[in-house]
Amino acid sequence: MKFGLFGAATAQRSANPDVDSAAGFKDYIEYVIEAEALGYESSFIVEHHFTGFGQVSATLNLLTWLGAQTTTMRLGTAVLVLPWHNPVLLAEQAATLDLLSGGRLDFGVGKGYRHNEYASFRIPMEEGQARFEEAVDIITQAWTSEQRFDFRGKFWNFDDIVVEPPTKQKPHPPFWQGAGHPDSIKRVAARGHNLLLDQFASIDETMRRFNVYRDAMIGNGFGFHPHQVGVARAFFVANTKAEKDAAIERRMAAQKRLHDISQRPDQNNTASIMAFSDTREANEEATLFGTPDEICAKVERLRAQGVEYLLLNGGGTSRENLRRFAKEVMAHFRDEDPIKAAAD
Amino acid sequence: MKFGLFGAATAQRSANPDVDSAAGFKDYIEYVIEAEALGYESSFIVEHHFTGFGQVSATLNLLTWLGAQTTTMRLGTAVLVLPWHNPVLLAEQAATLDLLSGGRLDFGVGKGYRHNEYASFRIPMEEGQARFEEAVDIITQAWTSEQRFDFRGKFWNFDDIVVEPPTKQKPHPPFWQGAGHPDSIKRVAARGHNLLLDQFASIDETMRRFNVYRDAMIGNGFGFHPHQVGVARAFFVANTKAEKDAAIERRMAAQKRLHDISQRPDQNNTASIMAFSDTREANEEATLFGTPDEICAKVERLRAQGVEYLLLNGGGTSRENLRRFAKEVMAHFRDEDPIKAAAD
Repeated sequence: MKFGLFGAATAQRSANPDVDSAAGFKDYIEYVIEAEALGYESSFIVEHHFTGFGQVSATLNLLTWLGAQTTTMRLGTAVLVLPWHNPVLLAEQAATLDLLSGGRLDFGVGKGYRHNEYASFRIPMEEGQARFEEAVDIITQAWTSEQRFDFRGKFWNFDDIVVEPPTKQKPHPPFWQGAGHPDSIKRVAARGHNLLLDQFASIDETMRRFNVYRDAMIGNGFGFHPHQVGVARAFFVANTKAEKDAAIERRMAAQKRLHDISQRPDQNNTASIMAFSDTREANEEATLFGTPDEICAKVERLRAQGVEYLLLNGGGTSRENLRRFAKEVMAHFRDEDPIKAAAD
Repeated sequence: MKFGLFGAATAQRSANPDVDSAAGFKDYIEYVIEAEALGYESSFIVEHHFTGFGQVSATLNLLTWLGAQTTTMRLGTAVLVLPWHNPVLLAEQAATLDLLSGGRLDFGVGKGYRHNEYASFRIPMEEGQARFEEAVDIITQAWTSEQRFDFRGKFWNFDDIVVEPPTKQKPHPPFWQGAGHPDSIKRVAARGHNLLLDQFASIDETMRRFNVYRDAMIGNGFGFHPHQVGVARAFFVANTKAEKDAAIERRMAAQKRLHDISQRPDQNNTASIMAFSDTREANEEATLFGTPDEICAKVERLRAQGVEYLLLNGGGTSRENLRRFAKEVMAHFRDEDPIKAAAD
């Protein structure tokens, strides 16, 4: 079983010269470096723009810095929002990172869900899906074409291009997409892309989605490996029930803030992956919050149904949480664990 | 006196899986890391697209990797071609590198000169200057505005944006522009940007340009420091006249190739910084090729006229050349050289 991380870093803007705006990025980088040493597999980072609180905007640049300071950690985007980017420049940037890192890029992509980002870039939100699909087409061709080619699309045109440098991974770095609705999941499987499942859905709902994807991938002739699905979960290793309860309260407040940021003017945001159940019970069920034994039981429940790759979010960069999860939870599920291996 | 490097790296595309496409990038990275240890100040890297021989396309990504593996080396672009980029995304990417590297970005920008790149991106070459100026306006505002702003241009529009993360250098990383014609140099000085002077012009011509810039900067009220002009020179430390002659032959052949790549269909490429004198004498005069004594004499000639910052190109990544120049030339011009300091 594999365990990765997903999350965000922030760089605080301040008029006060004593504030180190890089502190948030540096802390995240050190967190990921320690995570690699503890055996975490990957780190997926968001892309956002114009937030006012310094979320990561140049995701591939931060990942490139991380790549140069790590050796095995896979470097993921969750997700690059394709409608913002010239797809050829993005293909070049991603290929450069893949090449320099020895093939460690996980190329997570999406169409974006924040109304204010669409508004600021002045791109009609209703063009999002079509722009996304066209960008995936160009990028895939750019990475796999051995010859110069022309591209004619609705949004982009290029003449006589060859996209360099080549990627390290062949035929190209894996694409990952987030999806929740069965139709969306089937679109991901139609491309043969890997799947990111969100941290908010219940275990039962997550498994329904997992199975829709698995069946579609097999039906489409791509075959299926459980490592092609990253199941996101929030995690917090608690010593006591009071600690756990406090963590759930913090999480619900943070979700509310994210929900508000991504809100559309018509308040109709239920189609986004940010939609969530805001009851305490739903939060407790969907998260890996609790004592190591409680968390292990939940991970076992996911694993028993086929999940082999969890992407964890600690809601920050607590080293204590990172270390305890590695030593008291991950250690029980490592494939190289001799006890597990003998029992399997 | 300061000495930096400028150059290119290549990543070879190959159908042969035994070819390590990353080798050219890795070699360049190791070259820069050694250069830092030897006391070189900076490394400026090109941006090019669709070359077919793997020139650097994602310049800020390669520089970010370099930034993570160095500590004092300034990280320069020579130059980013602004018409290819969404200026807001570019401002974010550059700010991320500047922040992570502790303020080491030198932001060299240009409008591009290769006809085939304009054709492939399907941007009319006659729009180049206007696109360049508009991008400089947006990026400058993006880096310096403490408040959200709208931007209305001829090519780009943005609503209610705040560009994050903040840069480390204040008010922003230095802009650098290449220019040769007096009118172009005056445009650079009108912005108060730093100046890159090409490696092809003779010393006399270079000094005329240098003085046009110095006078314009002072006249515009920006003041002037000689470190604001990077004078590019090819360098090769030779043991014998035969070695020097062979190096000049190699250089002339390489120039011919670059000239052909950048050629316009009408063969009218004389306005570009790639225009060069193709006689052997002109090549010898404009370069730092020769024995350490010969090179020192030329550097001294430049220094005596006010040049305090050389950007060196070795036409490759010869460690021998890099080391000998550092030890047998640079050492004579270091400001901390106690003999020089006492004599000054």
